[in-house]
Amino acid sequence: MAVYTQVSDEELARFVASYGLGELKSYKGIAEGVENTNYLVNTSSGPFILTLYEKRVAQKDLPFFLELMDHLATSGIKCPTPLHDREGRMLRQLAGRPAAIITFLEGLWVRRPRVEHCALLGRALAEFHLVGQNYRAKRANSLSVNGWRPLFEACGGDIDTIAPGLAEEIETELAHLEANWPTALPSGIIHADLFPDNVFFLGSKISGLIDFYFACNDMLALDIAICLNAWCFEPDGAFNVTKARALLNAYTSERVLSTEELEFLPLLARGAAMRFLLTRVYDWLNTSEHALVERKDPIEYLRKLRFHARVTSVNEYGLENA
Amino acid sequence: MAVYTQVSDEELARFVASYGLGELKSYKGIAEGVENTNYLVNTSSGPFILTLYEKRVAQKDLPFFLELMDHLATSGIKCPTPLHDREGRMLRQLAGRPAAIITFLEGLWVRRPRVEHCALLGRALAEFHLVGQNYRAKRANSLSVNGWRPLFEACGGDIDTIAPGLAEEIETELAHLEANWPTALPSGIIHADLFPDNVFFLGSKISGLIDFYFACNDMLALDIAICLNAWCFEPDGAFNVTKARALLNAYTSERVLSTEELEFLPLLARGAAMRFLLTRVYDWLNTSEHALVERKDPIEYLRKLRFHARVTSVNEYGLENA
Repeated sequence: MAVYTQVSDEELARFVASYGLGELKSYKGIAEGVENTNYLVNTSSGPFILTLYEKRVAQKDLPFFLELMDHLATSGIKCPTPLHDREGRMLRQLAGRPAAIITFLEGLWVRRPRVEHCALLGRALAEFHLVGQNYRAKRANSLSVNGWRPLFEACGGDIDTIAPGLAEEIETELAHLEANWPTALPSGIIHADLFPDNVFFLGSKISGLIDFYFACNDMLALDIAICLNAWCFEPDGAFNVTKARALLNAYTSERVLSTEELEFLPLLARGAAMRFLLTRVYDWLNTSEHALVERKDPIEYLRKLRFHARVTSVNEYGLENA
Repeated sequence: MAVYTQVSDEELARFVASYGLGELKSYKGIAEGVENTNYLVNTSSGPFILTLYEKRVAQKDLPFFLELMDHLATSGIKCPTPLHDREGRMLRQLAGRPAAIITFLEGLWVRRPRVEHCALLGRALAEFHLVGQNYRAKRANSLSVNGWRPLFEACGGDIDTIAPGLAEEIETELAHLEANWPTALPSGIIHADLFPDNVFFLGSKISGLIDFYFACNDMLALDIAICLNAWCFEPDGAFNVTKARALLNAYTSERVLSTEELEFLPLLARGAAMRFLLTRVYDWLNTSEHALVERKDPIEYLRKLRFHARVTSVNEYGLENA
């Protein structure tokens, strides 16, 4: 959570004017998001988010992300939409960074999701997947199975300083996942990072999905697997099958899961846990305790991985018709 | 710039409701202010600032600050105003911290103040001083002349790592300031930290003064001296007498400066430079390069101190009638 790039009042006023948004009335750096600098910008036309893309987001992928948001929004998915400037551009430059102005979305992310939130999420995820089928641009998932071993190797020899035996357990799991990872499941655009802080609620509805900067093409069921990990475990580590059931039933009411997708869901959930375990291990070993960015506990995802490794059927996720 | 205290959606919704602000629609941590945690909170009643007071602000002083803002706002000074909850309280508790909800002020702080900004500032400062005369509560200025030597001593033996000879120069200056500091000038409530980032402009007007958490009772002309330091030097270190003239003429159009105040202004400006030199030296030596808080260059204020030490008359600040 940080503002990496400072923007002056004068350059921002000119920038806002080039979108025809009227007068710049205020702007505040937002202490959220670890990848980019975000400002909440208030203008005569209302509030907007200004995002300056820092180096952790590959610049060549920015058109993919912005056009995806534009596609989703025009297809009826509630999400932030990049504005077009007077010359029709969504991607601009400001303060030496790629920059975009994006609509401001009201809503709160829920710190403690309940069953009803999981149901709303499942439905929204399926709708997102269906609409994503019409998006033409492609982006590979660098954090899927082929990316895990290089990431594991990049973590170096200190992994066991986090927990004794962790490196060996990852090695064994990786070999299993690599040998059994499915290749022929329905694929399309996935969000790939749909944690509770990326889903806004207002009253009893979802007001929008945010943060599409991990979106890519991969198996749709992998997105479900990521959500099972992110939404359906309790703070004490227990899997909440009622939440999983709500999520899966709501999803399948919008988009039917094939027999193969259901069969592979435990393995995908295990792989999704591996993906977040590995990035957390890497960040843990490469981030100072005193850094701007809060380090997230890798062991949380090791426990989730172990849970899914013991699951033998999708029925254990509470899916009624499976 | 940081959010030190996280607030959950559920506790914030309850908190907002206790002020009768309707539904909580969104909230974002703001990456501004190094002392406290601030959230921009949007409700059905509009946007507000939620401030959680961290340990750097003395809790016993909070009623002084909040009642001052309340007094100023009801006396026509444009500034943030603390809301009263349904039981009439301005100071509350949230997430284990003292907390207040404060009105949101539109406006931008100017990164490069121009002459016209200095004139607007001078007038606003005088109006603030006049209205402050009716505020009854008192708070001593712990960062005035009596506080400098203890602060100097707390900096320890490493001062010369910042610049060779710095400790000796501070010692000599301190002795001069202590021996010559005035005691009988007009006093009252001063802001004590009215840097450009604490003054919001909208169009060609000041939309408000903010951040009263250094406010205290001291000589009014000391506030002017602080502003001369903060607003009237160029980035290359040159004193801009046109800006100083604009500031002083605008101030004196609202509140007449006595002969003694004019006579002592160079010494007060020298002391004001000492105050910020010392806190910056202290912070420089006690803050990691990698900390959340950006370290500010102490030498900038050493140069300002040297400038004021050479000033022999207030005429050198451009005041026409002196």
